[in-house]
Amino acid sequence: MEGWDVSVWDLRSDTVTKPCDEMRRAMAEAVVGDDVYEEDPTVRELEALGARLLGKEAALFVASGTMGNLIALLTHCGRGQGAVVGARSHIYNYEGGGMAALGGVMPLVVDDGTGLPSTEDLLGACRDASNVHFVEARLLCLENTHNASGGRAASPEAMEPLCALAREKGLSVHLDGARVFNAAVALGVDACRYGALVDSVQICLSKGLGAPVGSLLCGDGTFVREARKWRKRLGGGMRQAGVLAAAGLVALRSRIDRLAEDHEKARRLSLLLRREGLDLLDIPDATNMIYFRLPRGTEPHRFVDLCRNEGVLVGFPARDLVRLVTHLDLPEEAVDDVARSLVKAVRAL
Amino acid sequence: MEGWDVSVWDLRSDTVTKPCDEMRRAMAEAVVGDDVYEEDPTVRELEALGARLLGKEAALFVASGTMGNLIALLTHCGRGQGAVVGARSHIYNYEGGGMAALGGVMPLVVDDGTGLPSTEDLLGACRDASNVHFVEARLLCLENTHNASGGRAASPEAMEPLCALAREKGLSVHLDGARVFNAAVALGVDACRYGALVDSVQICLSKGLGAPVGSLLCGDGTFVREARKWRKRLGGGMRQAGVLAAAGLVALRSRIDRLAEDHEKARRLSLLLRREGLDLLDIPDATNMIYFRLPRGTEPHRFVDLCRNEGVLVGFPARDLVRLVTHLDLPEEAVDDVARSLVKAVRAL
Amino acid sequence: MEGWDVSVWDLRSDTVTKPCDEMRRAMAEAVVGDDVYEEDPTVRELEALGARLLGKEAALFVASGTMGNLIALLTHCGRGQGAVVGARSHIYNYEGGGMAALGGVMPLVVDDGTGLPSTEDLLGACRDASNVHFVEARLLCLENTHNASGGRAASPEAMEPLCALAREKGLSVHLDGARVFNAAVALGVDACRYGALVDSVQICLSKGLGAPVGSLLCGDGTFVREARKWRKRLGGGMRQAGVLAAAGLVALRSRIDRLAEDHEKARRLSLLLRREGLDLLDIPDATNMIYFRLPRGTEPHRFVDLCRNEGVLVGFPARDLVRLVTHLDLPEEAVDDVARSLVKAVRAL
Amino acid sequence: MEGWDVSVWDLRSDTVTKPCDEMRRAMAEAVVGDDVYEEDPTVRELEALGARLLGKEAALFVASGTMGNLIALLTHCGRGQGAVVGARSHIYNYEGGGMAALGGVMPLVVDDGTGLPSTEDLLGACRDASNVHFVEARLLCLENTHNASGGRAASPEAMEPLCALAREKGLSVHLDGARVFNAAVALGVDACRYGALVDSVQICLSKGLGAPVGSLLCGDGTFVREARKWRKRLGGGMRQAGVLAAAGLVALRSRIDRLAEDHEKARRLSLLLRREGLDLLDIPDATNMIYFRLPRGTEPHRFVDLCRNEGVLVGFPARDLVRLVTHLDLPEEAVDDVARSLVKAVRAL
Repeated sequence: MEGWDVSVWDLRSDTVTKPCDEMRRAMAEAVVGDDVYEEDPTVRELEALGARLLGKEAALFVASGTMGNLIALLTHCGRGQGAVVGARSHIYNYEGGGMAALGGVMPLVVDDGTGLPSTEDLLGACRDASNVHFVEARLLCLENTHNASGGRAASPEAMEPLCALAREKGLSVHLDGARVFNAAVALGVDACRYGALVDSVQICLSKGLGAPVGSLLCGDGTFVREARKWRKRLGGGMRQAGVLAAAGLVALRSRIDRLAEDHEKARRLSLLLRREGLDLLDIPDATNMIYFRLPRGTEPHRFVDLCRNEGVLVGFPARDLVRLVTHLDLPEEAVDDVARSLVKAVRAL
Repeated sequence: MEGWDVSVWDLRSDTVTKPCDEMRRAMAEAVVGDDVYEEDPTVRELEALGARLLGKEAALFVASGTMGNLIALLTHCGRGQGAVVGARSHIYNYEGGGMAALGGVMPLVVDDGTGLPSTEDLLGACRDASNVHFVEARLLCLENTHNASGGRAASPEAMEPLCALAREKGLSVHLDGARVFNAAVALGVDACRYGALVDSVQICLSKGLGAPVGSLLCGDGTFVREARKWRKRLGGGMRQAGVLAAAGLVALRSRIDRLAEDHEKARRLSLLLRREGLDLLDIPDATNMIYFRLPRGTEPHRFVDLCRNEGVLVGFPARDLVRLVTHLDLPEEAVDDVARSLVKAVRAL
Repeated sequence: MEGWDVSVWDLRSDTVTKPCDEMRRAMAEAVVGDDVYEEDPTVRELEALGARLLGKEAALFVASGTMGNLIALLTHCGRGQGAVVGARSHIYNYEGGGMAALGGVMPLVVDDGTGLPSTEDLLGACRDASNVHFVEARLLCLENTHNASGGRAASPEAMEPLCALAREKGLSVHLDGARVFNAAVALGVDACRYGALVDSVQICLSKGLGAPVGSLLCGDGTFVREARKWRKRLGGGMRQAGVLAAAGLVALRSRIDRLAEDHEKARRLSLLLRREGLDLLDIPDATNMIYFRLPRGTEPHRFVDLCRNEGVLVGFPARDLVRLVTHLDLPEEAVDDVARSLVKAVRAL
Repeated sequence: MEGWDVSVWDLRSDTVTKPCDEMRRAMAEAVVGDDVYEEDPTVRELEALGARLLGKEAALFVASGTMGNLIALLTHCGRGQGAVVGARSHIYNYEGGGMAALGGVMPLVVDDGTGLPSTEDLLGACRDASNVHFVEARLLCLENTHNASGGRAASPEAMEPLCALAREKGLSVHLDGARVFNAAVALGVDACRYGALVDSVQICLSKGLGAPVGSLLCGDGTFVREARKWRKRLGGGMRQAGVLAAAGLVALRSRIDRLAEDHEKARRLSLLLRREGLDLLDIPDATNMIYFRLPRGTEPHRFVDLCRNEGVLVGFPARDLVRLVTHLDLPEEAVDDVARSLVKAVRAL
């Protein structure tokens, strides 16, 4: 892997991107105040912009996507109420069980193998709340793009019947939109259309958009006011948070359209790997992720090590599935090299 | 439905059984004390007998099966730890989500369509606890007999590999044995063999055994001491509880073998209904339950009403499945009548 | 302590009373049903009577006073809201911290050394809920009679300004009325007057009223419906609970006025002990409790042992305070003997 | 208030300080990585330095003091255990009740009017944990400097008997050391001496030390590993957090000794106000805070407005007490002006 000023290409996640010079400059020059007193102008500007991009009334700057999702759960659901979550969703699998651990919210788990649950399963999770045996479903959580099904983008049209049914059954809807701009860009739709379908959306600034830290939780004014209390309780109230928000503003202002490049890199990498016979998952409406199956019996650690030796970091396989994520710190020109390295690693197994 | 001194036969559940004269007499004559001070001799006697029947060191008298299961979860699992539970288990579906609501315990849901999860799924739920994203699996919950799969009994041999794997992975095992004596009687094994496989067992006195109120949570001495604290916090510490324990003693002393009669009634009822063309689920190792499918499109309330008119109470169908439960308040001689009534109700749809 | 058919007189608490023959007969003959299905007629009758006695719309039968208080907290308060509780109240000190442990309810602790908090302290606990730093006070908990201040009875007039202020500040009020009939009898007021001041009341059947098990949580219909869900989650749903309710009915129907006898016994015992120089607390509006201070430096265990040797059980002293409770299982004729024994024990120190 | 390039002097809190040029430069140039993968070198450097300054094995970078305290509570205490906290402590009063709301930890409230609880009260809070009625005390929380008693510094010698007693009783000790360097500087002791007394310390980088965001939670290696899991669950795992840590490094490396200047400014301001007859609290071992009483009956909002008109922001009075906090954004030369403005405001009442 010569000619590049890095020792390795890191495809473990798009969270590894580092702030660019423009962001660093913005951070250094940020006008700040004490955001716990709601006096940081840069944070307020970021929150207003985020809200506008999703077509919501207000937004709250939070330390991470996990915090944004947790606050949404705490705000929408009372103790003992249920949140319908996908069996393969990030909220259910990768957030330390915070919903139950900290919020007493019961996950009502439904199949989301294709990225979205079915309306039938959603209906099944909405049991008669007047029966003392049953958990009252209070919230439907969707995820778009849906990480575990390959970064697959769902269209507003695909989400619509679920959101309508949820509403009919008295549930609110939260969208884990950590990568919702990937979906919007991939399908060529305005992110506002997602916002219009749901009660709250969490968007990450620190993944494909490249900001170092932070997410926004968007919703209506009452929701965000209540969310602010939960943020404080969690210890997520930060003082001169404008230094982070300044980078977030750069991300929202000038890094969204660029996500198309990540998708193109993933498409090309996918093509190259498939051509070499790797066992890739077919992902409809793919974005910036690739999943491929290792030969049966592969020792995952060994494969990760082989890749590292070839100069590529890959996520630790879940069972036999390897995930690759493209992002702004992987230049287009490096894609062929990455493909070659991965193929070498697979062959060396 | 003539000739019987009741207006209806109640097959909704075996929880509806009423205390017999022997139990009522025992209650009236019970020697009691203040059980919060651990001074009620009848409660102590019941706890000792329950522990012995399951081969455990100690037991705790609790107000219900739900309370026994909840205390087990609270005692085994710290805040934020995970309990592996079946997607169709009673704990996950019918206990109001208490594990998350009150205990901050995260359900790790696995398929249990056949009554027990697979070792493969259990393994999948035991993720690397050193990874900050993952919930640490701390407890495996099994249910035997398994209500939602038809009151199916699992043998100790079938449970053994799951318990062994759990132990290997550092999990404790709790058995929701609300009807474990049904399993033991159906398969002709000593209940102690179930006790030996797990760390704690909850057994119900108020289902097929016919006591009016109460369950026992069995485990080792340390576990039960800790469980006692959780019982008090939940408000489950009862004063002269010996009046209830007296009935429980009758149940454990002389009502266990009798469960075979309930199984025989269910077998016969099943035969009769099947012969009349009802769409019964095939339940291997069946005990005292029957499930049958209603014709597609049936309005559940209508069927329940038709049955009531025919003198039979049936459980409200989950989707299109009707459950029937036999028990000691359904005399053997009434089975044919019940079958006739049900067939009439189905035909009237 | 001769002439009585017991080895000891138990003055540790009024919870130690045993069901009388009338109660035992009522239990043996109770008409029962499955109370989880709300079909137990005896439970319904008890709930209706309890509600009527407190002037509330509805009531719920629960396993203990602790459970009644916990359910009240869970029903009134959402996760993270605050309950104003007395620093010496039973809820704060003797219920295992269930409010925080299971409900995520934050105790806002105020001084209640005289049995009731001051309006000034209550006001101080009601901080500006729009400020993200502060817990929103949602509930005021009162206790009457107030155990730790000597079983002191508070009049409706004394409670009224607190309840009015609470309401003005948007708080609901819960009365831990485990012994509210002692207060009503001592002050000669109708218990309904307490009920009228608060949103919910918990009354114990198993203390001075002599039933073996159970309490009632009274409130309006909506409150009790919600409380029923929490009872189920806690595992407090009991099946043929009518066997217990039958005893409760006897208690409510014919044991309330009798509490005056307990108060008279306490008055007389108090007189005798004071005459012998014991250091009794002055308790205005006393009921069935006596507190006296041990000589400085007394080893509490030693005193408890000395009393037992003299045939009297006393509660384990909190610091240097010994509590004595009179109740129906202590005959009037035994009071002088008890006094003699206690004086002997004190002198033997 | 002329001659200064600000419209107002902000004495509401030392949290309002803004990052200086050196910090901004450090942030812009920070070498970063993904801290959720523990790969951010600047965060690691900061954590190592923080740990060293407190004499602890390890440290964890968190978003705020509230988060550091909450994680400490979650890590030390299991669900239902108790934390002994001061009645006037920050944890109990200003952190939204997170300990109970999110952790199920019960506050055991003791008097801390002088900054520290008494050993007698601590002992009283440690009740017999084998008794099912009582909450087990698991943690003692101290606060130094102690905000509500005037920013008063406690010496290691004053803390020692409390820490020793806690340990004897099986409790761990957590120090809310948001301003522990103020204490160390004021009393001329090494901060390590505080660290040596306790199991965990939380220190704030964003108060007198001037960093924009962040705190460190210090403890031994096992504690910090467990704390890291709780941080992730709370959503406190931040990606390229090195941009914040870089400012924190400047704070710890070169802003600690400077706190003496804040103390000197507070001392001088105090002298001036007292001389003018303001009713100041006497604060032994004062640091950077001043409290004074408003004339009885003053409308707090009115006083805050009068001060703002005079160019000084003061904290909203708790009851009749006004708090002033000196910090690095208040130049020494401005102190006399601030005093004059405050006196004018008081006189205008």
